Amino acid sequence: MSEQLTLYLHKASPFSHKVELALIEANAPYKAYQINLFDKPEWFLKLNPVGEVPTVTYGGPSVEPENPSPLSAKIAESNVILEFLADLYPDSGLLPKDPVLRAKVRFFINATTKHIGDSSYAFVKGSEPYANVLKGIGFIQGLLEEGSEFAVGDHYTIADACIIPHLARLKILAENDIGKFPVGMGHKLSEELKAPKFAKIMKYVQRMLERPSLKQSFDEGLITYFKMVFTERVQ
Amino acid sequence: MSEQLTLYLHKASPFSHKVELALIEANAPYKAYQINLFDKPEWFLKLNPVGEVPTVTYGGPSVEPENPSPLSAKIAESNVILEFLADLYPDSGLLPKDPVLRAKVRFFINATTKHIGDSSYAFVKGSEPYANVLKGIGFIQGLLEEGSEFAVGDHYTIADACIIPHLARLKILAENDIGKFPVGMGHKLSEELKAPKFAKIMKYVQRMLERPSLKQSFDEGLITYFKMVFTERVQ
Repeated sequence: MSEQLTLYLHKASPFSHKVELALIEANAPYKAYQINLFDKPEWFLKLNPVGEVPTVTYGGPSVEPENPSPLSAKIAESNVILEFLADLYPDSGLLPKDPVLRAKVRFFINATTKHIGDSSYAFVKGSEPYANVLKGIGFIQGLLEEGSEFAVGDHYTIADACIIPHLARLKILAENDIGKFPVGMGHKLSEELKAPKFAKIMKYVQRMLERPSLKQSFDEGLITYFKMVFTERVQ
Repeated sequence: MSEQLTLYLHKASPFSHKVELALIEANAPYKAYQINLFDKPEWFLKLNPVGEVPTVTYGGPSVEPENPSPLSAKIAESNVILEFLADLYPDSGLLPKDPVLRAKVRFFINATTKHIGDSSYAFVKGSEPYANVLKGIGFIQGLLEEGSEFAVGDHYTIADACIIPHLARLKILAENDIGKFPVGMGHKLSEELKAPKFAKIMKYVQRMLERPSLKQSFDEGLITYFKMVFTERVQ
């Protein structure tokens, strides 16, 4: 795989993080470039008029990230990029070979997108209590096989890469009580997640947090950033 | 491919229709079984506790649809099933072979799910005016390549199977002014869609409506059903 791949991301974005994790787990060479989301460069808005991260450029000449080539393919939407990486690296295990197992991975990704992403962001933004977060986490836990190390099957897949960025953020924000929710609500959620009924999923999360891919891509310094964004209003 | 495949569906459901179209276009053998959504059989709720159509069983012994085998794999969520069919039939063209083109198909599916499904249902239910429908249709039109017969590339893919069930329903409901929206709003939308600025997508829709797969799976008698559901309250 000699084609160039550039990932435009923001370290705080769980959607960017999904793609970064998959790239690292697949041992794929890539360039990463952080976009300032509060002042997006014009060349980036030309590359992706919606202005969203993650965006990937693939193929074409090897150029500076600030000067993307019109000859590269441009791919947006984190779940689309996850599938793209699984296609580029069919032997990485990012997707199993068996169609039924592949469907399980995709069902898991679908459920994460539907039940975890929006509800945890709504809680952290202070626009919703955490009831839906717990409901989503309960649903996802029901999909985890007893004794299995990964989300689906016996290998790291894009299902793991999809959910962990959300849960890693939720965990540190709750533990540090960072968010626009009423003071103390983060701690309260954190306590609730320690209940035996969530033991299976929380053990899974812990295993994933200990992986080198996570440590390499998830900077605990982000706490400072989140404090700034969710305590004071930005913009 | 000799494994049994049973599709539990409801003919009115665009999500079921997506799967049916893909099966027909792939020339795949399958059994179809219609679920009464207003009185779901207990065995179906055991098969899929969420009770949603489409649901597919795959493999295991060949049994009567009313008596699904625990030895079959069970797959739910229409977009997950579309990908599953593309995996089962890699030579059907339901997904191209090239990773970048595959990403385009998935981006199209993602956009359909995000911009068309909810907004058109909300309009027909009478809970939203059609502004978002037109916005979604405009966005999707921007993805269509000039002069191309299909949503993506030069072959029928799951992108076509994903969008057409929504647009086919929207078209007949609007033309016949069937929906819980204020009387006349369907006709008005129908007129708006005839404007030159929507010519590209409406020509695409027309081409898709003329395909044998559509004619075989989309019963115009559904108009009677829709009239009943959207004029009188059911339940």
